[in-house]
Amino acid sequence: MNRTVFFVSESTGITAETLGHSLLSQFDTVNFEQVYMPYINTELRAQALTQRMAEAADRDGARPIVFATMLNHEIRDILKGGNCFYVELFEVFVGPLSAELGVPPSLKSGQSHAITKPSYYTKRIEAINFAMANDDGIRPDNFHRADVVLTGVSRSGKTPTCLYLAMHYGLRSANYPITEEDFERGDLPQLLYDCRHKLFALTIEPQRLQLIREERRPGSGYASLKRCQDDIKQAQKMYKRLQVPVLNTTTQSIEEISSQIIKMLKDNLDGGAASGGKTAVI
Amino acid sequence: MNRTVFFVSESTGITAETLGHSLLSQFDTVNFEQVYMPYINTELRAQALTQRMAEAADRDGARPIVFATMLNHEIRDILKGGNCFYVELFEVFVGPLSAELGVPPSLKSGQSHAITKPSYYTKRIEAINFAMANDDGIRPDNFHRADVVLTGVSRSGKTPTCLYLAMHYGLRSANYPITEEDFERGDLPQLLYDCRHKLFALTIEPQRLQLIREERRPGSGYASLKRCQDDIKQAQKMYKRLQVPVLNTTTQSIEEISSQIIKMLKDNLDGGAASGGKTAVI
Repeated sequence: MNRTVFFVSESTGITAETLGHSLLSQFDTVNFEQVYMPYINTELRAQALTQRMAEAADRDGARPIVFATMLNHEIRDILKGGNCFYVELFEVFVGPLSAELGVPPSLKSGQSHAITKPSYYTKRIEAINFAMANDDGIRPDNFHRADVVLTGVSRSGKTPTCLYLAMHYGLRSANYPITEEDFERGDLPQLLYDCRHKLFALTIEPQRLQLIREERRPGSGYASLKRCQDDIKQAQKMYKRLQVPVLNTTTQSIEEISSQIIKMLKDNLDGGAASGGKTAVI
Repeated sequence: MNRTVFFVSESTGITAETLGHSLLSQFDTVNFEQVYMPYINTELRAQALTQRMAEAADRDGARPIVFATMLNHEIRDILKGGNCFYVELFEVFVGPLSAELGVPPSLKSGQSHAITKPSYYTKRIEAINFAMANDDGIRPDNFHRADVVLTGVSRSGKTPTCLYLAMHYGLRSANYPITEEDFERGDLPQLLYDCRHKLFALTIEPQRLQLIREERRPGSGYASLKRCQDDIKQAQKMYKRLQVPVLNTTTQSIEEISSQIIKMLKDNLDGGAASGGKTAVI
C-alpha cells in the first residue's frame, strides 16, 4: 500500500513534520511517500497544493494524508476542502490550553522556530562553534570549558553526537578520540578522569565500525575487522576503569544518545553529589 | 504568571518537546519553566514525576502543564492522575489515522527518532561528515559533489546552517567564505557561478556582524563596524551579479533559513528548467 503524505505549514513546517513522522512511525506496514511543504502562506499556494493532492489521490488510488499546523482559517479551509485526510495538529490543543492558561493565543505563525529568545539562540550558535573548534581532541585544554565531553575510538560517532548536543540543547560539546598512544599506554589521559562528571563514552559493534572505516580508508589495516575488534575491546577496558556511562551508536541514533546524555547529565546534577557522582552504565 | 511545563515521553521526548514548544509559543505573555523528561518508561519513574508535579503546583500556585506522547496506558494513567493539566499529543490522532489507513498502530514507542531506516540515517551521518570536511571553503573542488553550497562573509552564519541542513535533511552541504582576495578582485570565483543552481548567499546586519566578530577578535579591524559594513556592501554587489537567493541571518534562525533553502531547491528542481533556472531573491 502506498500513501502520499504532505507536511504543511505557514512557516518552517518543522512541527508538522516532527509530529507527523512520529504518528506515521506507528504504521510501519504502510509505504508513505512524504512531501515537505513549508511556507504555504497564501491562498494561491494552498490552491496549488490541493491540485497536488488530487494528483496524489489519482496516483495512489487513495486520498493523501495532510499533517498541518495552520493558524490562518482561510488557508486551512482551502486545504481541508481538497481531496485529503486532513489532520490539523494545532487546533485541537490551542483552545483547551488557552482556557487553562486564561490567555488568548497570539495566532502568529512560525514562532516556535524563529529567534524569539535571542540569548538562547546565541547560546546554541556559540555551542555549535565550540563543538566545531573542539572536535577530535583538537583542544583538550578546553575540556574544562565544555558542558559535555565524549570519547570513543575513531569513527564511533563522536562528532555527529557532539554537533547534535550543541545544536539542539545548546551544550558546549567537545570530544576526545582514543589514539594509538592511549592504546599503547593502556589508559586514557588524566584530563579525562578530571572531567568524569560530564564524560560519556561511545561504543559500536566491530562489524559496523569496519564498514564505516572501510568507507573511509578502503583495504587499510585501520579498517580491518581485527583492528576494529581490538580497538573496541581495549576501549571498553578503559571505560570500565574510568567508570563512565557507555552508549552504543550501532543501535541508537544521535537523537537517542543525546537525549540519554541530557537525562544523565541532569540526574548527575540532581543527585550526583549525594551518590558520590556515580553514573549508571547503560 | 509562572507555569511549569513538563515534556514527557517513554523515549527521547523530541516529539513532545517540539509540538509542546510550538503550542507554548502561542502564549508569549506567560513565563514557562520548561522541564524535559525523556525515558519515563516505568511506573516508578511516572510516580516520581507526579511528585515533581505536586512540587511545581505548590511553587507556581497553579498546576503544571504536561505535554506527553505516551503509548503505555498504565504509565499514562499514573501521569494523568497527578496534579497537572495533561495534554496527550498522540492519542487523539492515532485512532482516526488508524481508521483512515485501515491498519492498527504498532504502539511501539520511540520509533520516530530511532534508526528505523538505516539507509536514510547513514545518509544523514555522511552528510554531517561532508559538511565538516567542506566547511569554510576548505575544498572548493568538492562543490560538484555537494547538494547545496552557501556563501557569505566571515561569521555570517554559514557553518551552523550547513550543519543543520546536513543533520536534518541529509544534504551534503559545503560553504565558501568570501575572502580578502575576492574583495580585491571584486568578484567571486568561477566555481561559484558553476554551482549557481544550488548556491545560496547569506547576509547579516552590520551591527550584528560587528558584535559577533568583536566576540571573536576584540578590538580588531576585522571587527570594526566600518569593515563589517564594507564587507557586506561588497558581498551584496557580488550576490547581485551571481543572481542567487540571499537570506538574512540577523532576523532568521538556522531552522527558518534551512527550510527556505529546502523549498527553493525543490522549486528549482520542479520548475527550474522551465523558468531558465531563475531563483527568487528573498
